[in-house]
Amino acid sequence: MSASRPFILVLHGPNLNALGSREPAIYGADTLLSIDASLRARAATLGCDVLCVQSASEAVLVDAVLDAGRWADGVVINPGALTHTSVALRDAVLAAGVPVVECHLSHTDRREAFRRRSWLGPACVGRVQGFGATSYLLALEGLVAHLARAHQGGR
Amino acid sequence: MSASRPFILVLHGPNLNALGSREPAIYGADTLLSIDASLRARAATLGCDVLCVQSASEAVLVDAVLDAGRWADGVVINPGALTHTSVALRDAVLAAGVPVVECHLSHTDRREAFRRRSWLGPACVGRVQGFGATSYLLALEGLVAHLARAHQGGR
Amino acid sequence: MSASRPFILVLHGPNLNALGSREPAIYGADTLLSIDASLRARAATLGCDVLCVQSASEAVLVDAVLDAGRWADGVVINPGALTHTSVALRDAVLAAGVPVVECHLSHTDRREAFRRRSWLGPACVGRVQGFGATSYLLALEGLVAHLARAHQGGR
Amino acid sequence: MSASRPFILVLHGPNLNALGSREPAIYGADTLLSIDASLRARAATLGCDVLCVQSASEAVLVDAVLDAGRWADGVVINPGALTHTSVALRDAVLAAGVPVVECHLSHTDRREAFRRRSWLGPACVGRVQGFGATSYLLALEGLVAHLARAHQGGR
Amino acid sequence: MSASRPFILVLHGPNLNALGSREPAIYGADTLLSIDASLRARAATLGCDVLCVQSASEAVLVDAVLDAGRWADGVVINPGALTHTSVALRDAVLAAGVPVVECHLSHTDRREAFRRRSWLGPACVGRVQGFGATSYLLALEGLVAHLARAHQGGR
Amino acid sequence: MSASRPFILVLHGPNLNALGSREPAIYGADTLLSIDASLRARAATLGCDVLCVQSASEAVLVDAVLDAGRWADGVVINPGALTHTSVALRDAVLAAGVPVVECHLSHTDRREAFRRRSWLGPACVGRVQGFGATSYLLALEGLVAHLARAHQGGR
Amino acid sequence: MSASRPFILVLHGPNLNALGSREPAIYGADTLLSIDASLRARAATLGCDVLCVQSASEAVLVDAVLDAGRWADGVVINPGALTHTSVALRDAVLAAGVPVVECHLSHTDRREAFRRRSWLGPACVGRVQGFGATSYLLALEGLVAHLARAHQGGR
Amino acid sequence: MSASRPFILVLHGPNLNALGSREPAIYGADTLLSIDASLRARAATLGCDVLCVQSASEAVLVDAVLDAGRWADGVVINPGALTHTSVALRDAVLAAGVPVVECHLSHTDRREAFRRRSWLGPACVGRVQGFGATSYLLALEGLVAHLARAHQGGR
Amino acid sequence: MSASRPFILVLHGPNLNALGSREPAIYGADTLLSIDASLRARAATLGCDVLCVQSASEAVLVDAVLDAGRWADGVVINPGALTHTSVALRDAVLAAGVPVVECHLSHTDRREAFRRRSWLGPACVGRVQGFGATSYLLALEGLVAHLARAHQGGR
Amino acid sequence: MSASRPFILVLHGPNLNALGSREPAIYGADTLLSIDASLRARAATLGCDVLCVQSASEAVLVDAVLDAGRWADGVVINPGALTHTSVALRDAVLAAGVPVVECHLSHTDRREAFRRRSWLGPACVGRVQGFGATSYLLALEGLVAHLARAHQGGR
Amino acid sequence: MSASRPFILVLHGPNLNALGSREPAIYGADTLLSIDASLRARAATLGCDVLCVQSASEAVLVDAVLDAGRWADGVVINPGALTHTSVALRDAVLAAGVPVVECHLSHTDRREAFRRRSWLGPACVGRVQGFGATSYLLALEGLVAHLARAHQGGR
Amino acid sequence: MSASRPFILVLHGPNLNALGSREPAIYGADTLLSIDASLRARAATLGCDVLCVQSASEAVLVDAVLDAGRWADGVVINPGALTHTSVALRDAVLAAGVPVVECHLSHTDRREAFRRRSWLGPACVGRVQGFGATSYLLALEGLVAHLARAHQGGR
Repeated sequence: MSASRPFILVLHGPNLNALGSREPAIYGADTLLSIDASLRARAATLGCDVLCVQSASEAVLVDAVLDAGRWADGVVINPGALTHTSVALRDAVLAAGVPVVECHLSHTDRREAFRRRSWLGPACVGRVQGFGATSYLLALEGLVAHLARAHQGGR
Repeated sequence: MSASRPFILVLHGPNLNALGSREPAIYGADTLLSIDASLRARAATLGCDVLCVQSASEAVLVDAVLDAGRWADGVVINPGALTHTSVALRDAVLAAGVPVVECHLSHTDRREAFRRRSWLGPACVGRVQGFGATSYLLALEGLVAHLARAHQGGR
Repeated sequence: MSASRPFILVLHGPNLNALGSREPAIYGADTLLSIDASLRARAATLGCDVLCVQSASEAVLVDAVLDAGRWADGVVINPGALTHTSVALRDAVLAAGVPVVECHLSHTDRREAFRRRSWLGPACVGRVQGFGATSYLLALEGLVAHLARAHQGGR
Repeated sequence: MSASRPFILVLHGPNLNALGSREPAIYGADTLLSIDASLRARAATLGCDVLCVQSASEAVLVDAVLDAGRWADGVVINPGALTHTSVALRDAVLAAGVPVVECHLSHTDRREAFRRRSWLGPACVGRVQGFGATSYLLALEGLVAHLARAHQGGR
Repeated sequence: MSASRPFILVLHGPNLNALGSREPAIYGADTLLSIDASLRARAATLGCDVLCVQSASEAVLVDAVLDAGRWADGVVINPGALTHTSVALRDAVLAAGVPVVECHLSHTDRREAFRRRSWLGPACVGRVQGFGATSYLLALEGLVAHLARAHQGGR
Repeated sequence: MSASRPFILVLHGPNLNALGSREPAIYGADTLLSIDASLRARAATLGCDVLCVQSASEAVLVDAVLDAGRWADGVVINPGALTHTSVALRDAVLAAGVPVVECHLSHTDRREAFRRRSWLGPACVGRVQGFGATSYLLALEGLVAHLARAHQGGR
Repeated sequence: MSASRPFILVLHGPNLNALGSREPAIYGADTLLSIDASLRARAATLGCDVLCVQSASEAVLVDAVLDAGRWADGVVINPGALTHTSVALRDAVLAAGVPVVECHLSHTDRREAFRRRSWLGPACVGRVQGFGATSYLLALEGLVAHLARAHQGGR
Repeated sequence: MSASRPFILVLHGPNLNALGSREPAIYGADTLLSIDASLRARAATLGCDVLCVQSASEAVLVDAVLDAGRWADGVVINPGALTHTSVALRDAVLAAGVPVVECHLSHTDRREAFRRRSWLGPACVGRVQGFGATSYLLALEGLVAHLARAHQGGR
Repeated sequence: MSASRPFILVLHGPNLNALGSREPAIYGADTLLSIDASLRARAATLGCDVLCVQSASEAVLVDAVLDAGRWADGVVINPGALTHTSVALRDAVLAAGVPVVECHLSHTDRREAFRRRSWLGPACVGRVQGFGATSYLLALEGLVAHLARAHQGGR
Repeated sequence: MSASRPFILVLHGPNLNALGSREPAIYGADTLLSIDASLRARAATLGCDVLCVQSASEAVLVDAVLDAGRWADGVVINPGALTHTSVALRDAVLAAGVPVVECHLSHTDRREAFRRRSWLGPACVGRVQGFGATSYLLALEGLVAHLARAHQGGR
Repeated sequence: MSASRPFILVLHGPNLNALGSREPAIYGADTLLSIDASLRARAATLGCDVLCVQSASEAVLVDAVLDAGRWADGVVINPGALTHTSVALRDAVLAAGVPVVECHLSHTDRREAFRRRSWLGPACVGRVQGFGATSYLLALEGLVAHLARAHQGGR
Repeated sequence: MSASRPFILVLHGPNLNALGSREPAIYGADTLLSIDASLRARAATLGCDVLCVQSASEAVLVDAVLDAGRWADGVVINPGALTHTSVALRDAVLAAGVPVVECHLSHTDRREAFRRRSWLGPACVGRVQGFGATSYLLALEGLVAHLARAHQGGR
């Protein structure tokens, strides 16, 4: 970790821009805006800063992860459906040089079988899934704890 | 269906921009322009309007499908090769809230085995494949019939 | 195509004789009789004739397809569950010498995984699925368009 | 949730009794005792109580989960290797009637392929993996948040 | 190896308690008692001590293997049917910190295909199978030779 | 069969102790106690005796089956989730020397695909599934008929 | 159930007409005639009527199942080899509207692996297998018990 | 073999009635009639009689094979596409009690992968494939040689 | 075919040199010598010449097949176990430029599943299997018929 | 080839922009800039021109390949991770109408199993992999040789 | 066993001639010569004779195994990589008529997954693997014990 | 690399001796002789020596690779069909101690699916395929570049 106050990039993949604005009876009132606000509030508590970006584009996400290696201390990513199809994201995480944590709103084990495979999973530090918007907060906390441990010495 | 005259988004995926301009002996004189013109003519007959968009970008198509939920009554999509690789398109169709019909120029069963799987298929109303440019016209007609049935009070 | 007014054989496979007479809340009021009537009406519009046959017997359907090569210009077939089990129907379609179009009331992609494989698919011209009784009408129109194209100068 | 202060059962599966007492250079100084102490401390912060149990026996764990339905508000479980082999635990989670959260010290995606399948996963609320002892704390927090949400009147 | 005279734990898995007492025409007169006696005799020749334990319980065997790391120099195990189902035993062998040798009375290759996979195999030093009660004696000898080689320097 | 009045061991596997005491709207009022009472009543009608045992432990069930070979004439077993994971039970049934019949309350074919495989199935005489508590009664009757036939001199 | 005395259709699939008339040393003296007689006798005891039909034709069996929905209260079927190949029978059972029970003379688990899959299984109430001619009697009894339960007001 | 002059049933499966009457440039001038004539000529040379039957119906072929056990000394069968789908034919061959030889006009290895599996293969004496109409003649000769060897003593 | 009297190479693969000299009760008195003698006798009848070679070496057989393209009119080969493992033989057959017929003494469908795949099969004209030594004679006759047909005017 | 001096498009896929700027101890000092410089130098030697483009976007690469058909004589592409996921690139290569050569810095066979499949492979002329930056130079040379051969007179 | 002092053939497969002469830090100082010397020494202790042969040729090994049936009492074989590819060796072991024991220096379970399958395994008496050069000595001892047991009567 | 002028062994596997001498319209005029001549010419340019050997024998190739470790600086190998079947060649490459480069005339991705797997691939430095005889020249150049890089001090 570069400095005492870590900077974290939060990435949202495809279709997450549709959250909240539709089908509130199912997905609740949480919009991506409210999730980002919760993340900033939790970041303040944890003593770190977050930058939040959404894109449906694999290329944008790949380059954002690569780029994060130059200015951020870690990445929290919810890759959406790209979880199950993007080898390029896996390679970007391997190349980034900073720890990456994967999170999901839903529990992917409860859905179709193909959602059980995460291509970028083996390149990440850990994963949190199934707690709705809380998944992001737990992922952020887990990443900060990981950075603190790494900062203290040893992997 | 929002109103008496439905508005339909027609999406063309990767490589469909190459139609007609090359290898006319194989693919015929149909360009994407001529297909779009045929669609507009058929739409007039069927009493609906169409907007036609082509992109090789999964992200552009995903966001177009999501967005269609806000202004269109349905979508006809030929996802090209993304049919067999894009889970994000499947999720977008599930989230869109308007019916989507899939179509293909060729009969994908007559080609490589991996073309038998359509990721977005289970999220769509139906599929038409194998009739060349006519596939688009049949898909449009099928979608309009589906909207009429839903309008009358079915599910 | 033998003559200016094509003659089309329409085949219905196993269990389609149960349509309409039971569970109307689910399957609607469409009986096989009403589907056949719609087909004859659409045929009149399209300038062709249809003959409709139903059988649960793979052998009857196989011999009907083979026989169609001698008197019909094309075949529309909804093979029902035989879609997923009959190699003999595939071979009959290959041997028939006239174009065959496959159709289904439901969208087979939305059901069990084994319904994704159609044995006769690779031998057919194209397929329409998911539009209820309308699937038959679109299949008929697609077949007639195919015959017209073939009539105009080779495929 | 039965009352204002939830009671959580924490279950540790086979081989977790070996933590800390051996190979500290690899697994760190965390023993199961210290993990349980951290859990009790975090529980105090979160306003809940925890009871921690370790067993290598599938039968003991199955009956503990079933039993929890009678006295606890939720379960956090690290099933160890039983994650990948025990259908009985899955059935117990389904039958328990209280929410269960799965956690793992290591990121199972980074190990052998067979560790990617969790039999009890589809029966759980969510999963946290890869953060070492912190995984337990995040799982506890996620479970408490889930209970609070359910208490407020969600799904 | 802790000392000049190694101490070896011999573990028998499920159903091995039924040996000899039934179907002697098939399995011969060898009971588990006589196998244990042969092992003690061979141990005397090889200059080591053995302790023999039988259990049908995965949990008992897992904890016995873990525990052996504290007092024994190595383990000979015939896991019976748990060979093909227990990941927990594999993890215990990995965690034990002493070498483990797997043995089988029958040649598992000559039986059902699922018996070809040994979950704990990749964690063991080696395997002996197919020689009836002699398999145990060869496994013991192989383990003692392995300990001697490791004692002399390097793996 | 040893004597004129057969003695049958009835084994219930994991999670069956949870029957009836919870979710009566789904599983009905049948508790394991009431099933055992029905079995004793039917046994009286069929002219045999039953002993009923429940355990979540594979080891307990394995040793019970092995032991049954010494005092019982046959076994009826509902292995619960162990049906799909326990090779040790299969080996115990093969070694027991008395006929074993498998039964299930639910029809396992109507559930997840992995429930289609029964490890102990090929070692049993037969199977009854899908009739709720009646499955046990039919299994008992089938086993008694099997014993009678074997007693008369067939295989 | 339509009336107080249920009417049951019993269907025998291909090759069952060869029972008894050949290889009596293997299959015993039970002919299909004697099985049908046993069924009628048991039906009298259970207070129901049976009609027994044999055919090697999938089409005949499919239409018989469909037709049973109009005059019978339930069906007992031994589909013979069609168990493993006929999707049309599965669809017929789903469409029939009366409960169907599957039975087999032999225990299909003890034979080739492909006999483990029953296409119509997931559409049936339950299954009995392995008890020879007794399988039919148990299936009939299970079906009658199912009808009685359904008659009393369950699902 | 019942008598000195064997009687052989020759069965042709689905689509073989289309031979010769169409596409002579591809399949040659051989009709089923001419193949049957060649078989009768070769039968005269070999000292046996043949009866030839064609049907697209699995049920007709199954019952013909079963029936052959009562009046014929052996069967030559070209099951056409049923080769790859009919378990009922396999069971009929197993039950027939007379030797059956399988033959094919084309070499099934040179076609789609699914044509490599013959369901009835493991129940037959042998197979001849790839020699066009000559395949039938070689199959007949092979069957007669098999009968002669069996007649001389031993299998 | 080069001339009026075809010259045929007969190749025997690994283990076929063990025929006859051992286990005559099982394999009969047929040695490779007697099979070769039968082949020469049948060749005389058919008006052709044969040269018979045995080798366990894939390399010898590959080069023999390649070489046959220079001096022989066709090849009959029993590749023994190389049938299931040698891609090099497949390529040699493809490169040879003369027709090759495969034969087997036993019916490979009746043995282990891996024997169902023949690597060189798709490169051959046809196959005969299951008739013992007669398989060679039928294969020779089939090859000669094939050559005659090809000689008369194209395939 | 359009003219005497071929024009080659070189495409670099996702993550290749990260080369050299990071982890030089592992990947060496080669940046994408230096690779492009080497390519231009080698192009001068080989008598051709190159244009080099990098993008993480499948859509950009697809359209670049399609477009190359209008102005370039061939394409060298290192698709990075898209090698294993992009069917759209495969279709673009098939549609481009100019030869495409695939290259990789690392030997993909030495990495995860899923990297063994190249979707665009079957549409390319050839592939070079494992020689680091030299792979590009060899691919360029191979493509130029291919163009020269095609120029001299058909393939 | 032919006589009181058994004669054992020891076969070493491909690459085993490279042992010892290279990479002694990894494989130790054991050359094939020293292993053969150890085998002769152990043979003297066990009261038998050994002949040791190395070849990379499947054909040489196949014929050596077949030939051993004529002069040896048993075979110890380390087939090297042929373990995983040679069906011909399996057939040779089946045909040899003397018992064969398989051994390996390394524990094949700890290497690539494809090394888990031994083609000749199911034809052998037993296997020893993972003990380095000691594997040969244990295999020899196991074979001699097997011969002694067989000599005493029964298999 | 031992000295300033590297010595390279070039190995050609089975069927490559048939090049050029047959079917020149397909394979061109390139014989193995001309390929070897091209290799010697290119070697002169690159400043190295080559020795070229062809054999259809896996054993000869295995021992040649092993032997190369004693006198050559690297190996270029076109294993022909052994690419897809020989584990022994893989082990030889692993044991050789000098770098090995694999090459193919054709692009194996464009042929049968089984040709996509190269057993020796993961043991080689790299691979070149699809450029006809040029593949050998590029492979040689790639190997020499690899040796130069390794000589300079990299890994």
